[in-house]
Amino acid sequence: MHSAFSLQCPIPISDYPTITLAHGGGGKLSQMLVERMFAPAFACPELEILHDGAALDFGLTHIDEQSAICNLQSATRLAFSTDSYVISPRFFPGGDIGSLAIHGTVNDLAMCGGRPLYLSAGFILEEGLPMDELWRIVQSMSAAAKAADVRVVTGDTKVVERGKGDGIFINTTGVGLIPAGVQIAPTRARPGDIVLVNGPIGAHGIAVMSVREGLEFETAIESDSAPLHTLAADILAAGGEAVHVLRDPTRGGVASALNEIAARARVGILLDEAHIPVQEEVQAACAILGFDPLYVANEGKCLAIVGRSAAVPVLAAMRAHPLGQQAAIIGEVADGQPGKVFLRSRIGGLRMVDMLSGEQLPRIC
Amino acid sequence: MHSAFSLQCPIPISDYPTITLAHGGGGKLSQMLVERMFAPAFACPELEILHDGAALDFGLTHIDEQSAICNLQSATRLAFSTDSYVISPRFFPGGDIGSLAIHGTVNDLAMCGGRPLYLSAGFILEEGLPMDELWRIVQSMSAAAKAADVRVVTGDTKVVERGKGDGIFINTTGVGLIPAGVQIAPTRARPGDIVLVNGPIGAHGIAVMSVREGLEFETAIESDSAPLHTLAADILAAGGEAVHVLRDPTRGGVASALNEIAARARVGILLDEAHIPVQEEVQAACAILGFDPLYVANEGKCLAIVGRSAAVPVLAAMRAHPLGQQAAIIGEVADGQPGKVFLRSRIGGLRMVDMLSGEQLPRIC
Repeated sequence: MHSAFSLQCPIPISDYPTITLAHGGGGKLSQMLVERMFAPAFACPELEILHDGAALDFGLTHIDEQSAICNLQSATRLAFSTDSYVISPRFFPGGDIGSLAIHGTVNDLAMCGGRPLYLSAGFILEEGLPMDELWRIVQSMSAAAKAADVRVVTGDTKVVERGKGDGIFINTTGVGLIPAGVQIAPTRARPGDIVLVNGPIGAHGIAVMSVREGLEFETAIESDSAPLHTLAADILAAGGEAVHVLRDPTRGGVASALNEIAARARVGILLDEAHIPVQEEVQAACAILGFDPLYVANEGKCLAIVGRSAAVPVLAAMRAHPLGQQAAIIGEVADGQPGKVFLRSRIGGLRMVDMLSGEQLPRIC
Repeated sequence: MHSAFSLQCPIPISDYPTITLAHGGGGKLSQMLVERMFAPAFACPELEILHDGAALDFGLTHIDEQSAICNLQSATRLAFSTDSYVISPRFFPGGDIGSLAIHGTVNDLAMCGGRPLYLSAGFILEEGLPMDELWRIVQSMSAAAKAADVRVVTGDTKVVERGKGDGIFINTTGVGLIPAGVQIAPTRARPGDIVLVNGPIGAHGIAVMSVREGLEFETAIESDSAPLHTLAADILAAGGEAVHVLRDPTRGGVASALNEIAARARVGILLDEAHIPVQEEVQAACAILGFDPLYVANEGKCLAIVGRSAAVPVLAAMRAHPLGQQAAIIGEVADGQPGKVFLRSRIGGLRMVDMLSGEQLPRIC
């Protein structure tokens, strides 16, 4: 049973002797950890078959590293997704670690095309956390769960000694039911598809960074943290089977999410900078902080990749939803350049948009 | 939406201004946190109905705070359970945080009567964790998952700055399918039932404490960490519907687990000290460290509470299983004294066995 220990570490220790913040940043090093270490360690026959595209007949489909779809029996498909929340600071404009922990996992389930049903909540508390702060966070989770119509049905609490944690970390894991006929997967993006987003990007990351850096703007920038399940349902109702991919661009932002999809589907993606909505204040803050909004985290944004004929009805459905009033078509899936994302700039230039490399915004979620 | 914030903290802040290690110890303060804060915050109509005993017709049954059963549709019941692992040290005789994270959640699912199927894995890593240590832990998880016939199908990795974590914390959350006819719930213990355990208690806690305290014994005490799903299946096959309760006595030990069951089922439980199996070395270590084995954590033990007529076949099934060779009948469910656990000592005295109070063994799992 222990023979596996003799295998060499699949990540070159000479280059990466220890874990760094970038390994949790949602960019290249995160991806390396998943692809080289976790995926092979937890590989199972179904997954290897899946790599060849045999998808749902074999019991499991991977949406991304955080979400899987499990076939329980022929008629019931279950979306299953996990996320740990370590955001610092715990309270920020537009939310807190409690509401974020609900929204984040609700959104991961919604991006599988699933109706979120039940969540678990695992707390790792640091000795000395003020009791009333825990209470505020729990109340916020409770309100967010009610608003998102999910139930926290099981939980766990661990406490670590002072100095061995940072106040509170929360894991939420969710299950949801996927209606028959819904087939959402990153591999389904194909040339000719249209890429949409439900509104201005980058607000969450900038709201959190502003608090950390003590920046003040004329208008406070608020996180976009919100539950996207009803928006996703409206998109699916409008686009039907032409809805190929849904994805919430969290850590690593729109750029990293689209790079992942481009790689999984072996397609190119072409974005149109002029059409990507960004709030003026977010753009200004990005300029000050040296960030590109394409890489900044969102917690209430949904990318939808849909067949060309569905683009107009899906856009209309997004705009009719309170969380999609500023929805836009931001690009398309291209023929050629598989695995790459390009941006046509406002002045007409074309540049490649790579995955986030290094750590831009530690502990943003 | 924020009106809930005006409610007063349900735990008296004058008595408990901050979180203490005991709030994570599995004893009275853990229970207070769950009952006064988490349960009301996440209450839903089904749960309130459940308190009156209407159980499975309403969509959810709670096995304990860490496990719930969800009715997906009439024929499919899902066991759903979460646990975060913060054990220190990360490697100990008989296991490590990786194998423990698999066994613990597999066991929680098995104790619902479920066949464990899929796990999620959420890692919270501290900057500076040696890469090869992560690799050893992941390999151990992989081997444990294979041995327990479960698949880790989805995951998440976060990294926190040096000094804001402690190497590695792992959350695993699992789903399992519950066969038709299986009705396991702590509320089902009833007077006349027999209490069994599958072997000697207290090894896990003592194995970990020995490493921490630098104690050496003639024979090294190893953790009992093991997956209990096939044992649970054998118990269910032997006892059928007469198997009323299954429970793994982890944090807080046998004493706390039975106190919880006694409270939930409103029955008394009477244990017979002479019949409770304890390894000699564990007994000796408990004497040195000042512990009572009844309160020491186990990670490969299963308490079964079964109808009297099923006691002999269940005991035989346990003893026929590699993890139950030293199984024993250790007590019975009594008429009267609801919510209380008593121990008949070797010399015939009767004493009350309360829940663990305070923190005995921090970060034991």
